[in-house]
Amino acid sequence: MEIMQVIGRLVCTQRVPGINHMHLRIIRNNKGKLLVAVDPVGAREGNWVFTATGTAARFACPDSSTQTDLTIEGIIDHWSPDG
Amino acid sequence: MEIMQVIGRLVCTQRVPGINHMHLRIIRNNKGKLLVAVDPVGAREGNWVFTATGTAARFACPDSSTQTDLTIEGIIDHWSPDG
Amino acid sequence: MEIMQVIGRLVCTQRVPGINHMHLRIIRNNKGKLLVAVDPVGAREGNWVFTATGTAARFACPDSSTQTDLTIEGIIDHWSPDG
Amino acid sequence: MEIMQVIGRLVCTQRVPGINHMHLRIIRNNKGKLLVAVDPVGAREGNWVFTATGTAARFACPDSSTQTDLTIEGIIDHWSPDG
Amino acid sequence: MEIMQVIGRLVCTQRVPGINHMHLRIIRNNKGKLLVAVDPVGAREGNWVFTATGTAARFACPDSSTQTDLTIEGIIDHWSPDG
Repeated sequence: MEIMQVIGRLVCTQRVPGINHMHLRIIRNNKGKLLVAVDPVGAREGNWVFTATGTAARFACPDSSTQTDLTIEGIIDHWSPDG
Repeated sequence: MEIMQVIGRLVCTQRVPGINHMHLRIIRNNKGKLLVAVDPVGAREGNWVFTATGTAARFACPDSSTQTDLTIEGIIDHWSPDG
Repeated sequence: MEIMQVIGRLVCTQRVPGINHMHLRIIRNNKGKLLVAVDPVGAREGNWVFTATGTAARFACPDSSTQTDLTIEGIIDHWSPDG
Repeated sequence: MEIMQVIGRLVCTQRVPGINHMHLRIIRNNKGKLLVAVDPVGAREGNWVFTATGTAARFACPDSSTQTDLTIEGIIDHWSPDG
Repeated sequence: MEIMQVIGRLVCTQRVPGINHMHLRIIRNNKGKLLVAVDPVGAREGNWVFTATGTAARFACPDSSTQTDLTIEGIIDHWSPDG
């Protein structure tokens, strides 16, 4: 899993059915790249989170037919990007 | 999922049966690299989209026996690559 | 899927049973790196092709018990690496 | 599998159910990047370990419904990062 | 699949059950990075091999419950890293 920071929400009206009802978050990885993740834990802007990829990302959702390849699995209690 | 921009179509007459009937799009990632994605949402040239990889890419297609590893899952309403 | 160019064949007498009967091609990605792919479409040296990874690579083969993680899925009609 | 070093524990109260009961370790890869891994072998801070990704990461856990994409699979007896 | 060179063995007494009985090799990729692979073909130090990742890595083993994400699938007859 990777450690990333929540930046905001993604507004996306037109989607495939498999991702239709999930909240989408824009998150930033350690290189500054912006990614899109499904969020079943209710993370807020600025939160440091850890994320899973692959089949784990799908099975971490309440409905495992959610077609995601990146899911927020937890909110980190305390984190500083510089250690 | 990643945020990419649709560049055009890929013309490819000779294919494996598993990808035969799908529209293929050329899309560009945040590093400028050109990739090929299956498009079940009807994205147009210039659209900013988010894409999924892995098994999610296959299951996001109307027919999950589509042998893709990259699928456009939605068209982003508003996006600026510089934030 | 990624766009790559076929460079040649890979001669490899000693293999695991799961990859035994397939043609192996050496292909080059956009960074110049040489990779090994299974080829069910009959690509020739110099052809520009698109390739799939992961489970899609296996299911794109005529026999899905082929243990590949990279498969040529189609030959591109016209391609210039500079666009 | 990759060779990494255990740096510490990750404190993370709010998690998805799929990762609820596992110890989470912060580990560092060969580029200095910090990642989060599930640890079924009981590694300690400073240990050099090897890790698996993907479905192998899930199936390497005592409970294969653990939604991880990175798992410590073994502790290396002797290792020097410079060979 | 990728082309790598076998460097040596990995001594690792404490492992998860899923990887318990397999020979582990240290191999080097084209960037000089050292990785750990399962070896069902009996490669020797110095051999150039091709490797598979993901589910193909598991199914290429005699026992597909081997929890690996990188497996040596064949020994290349002749290879020069400079082509």
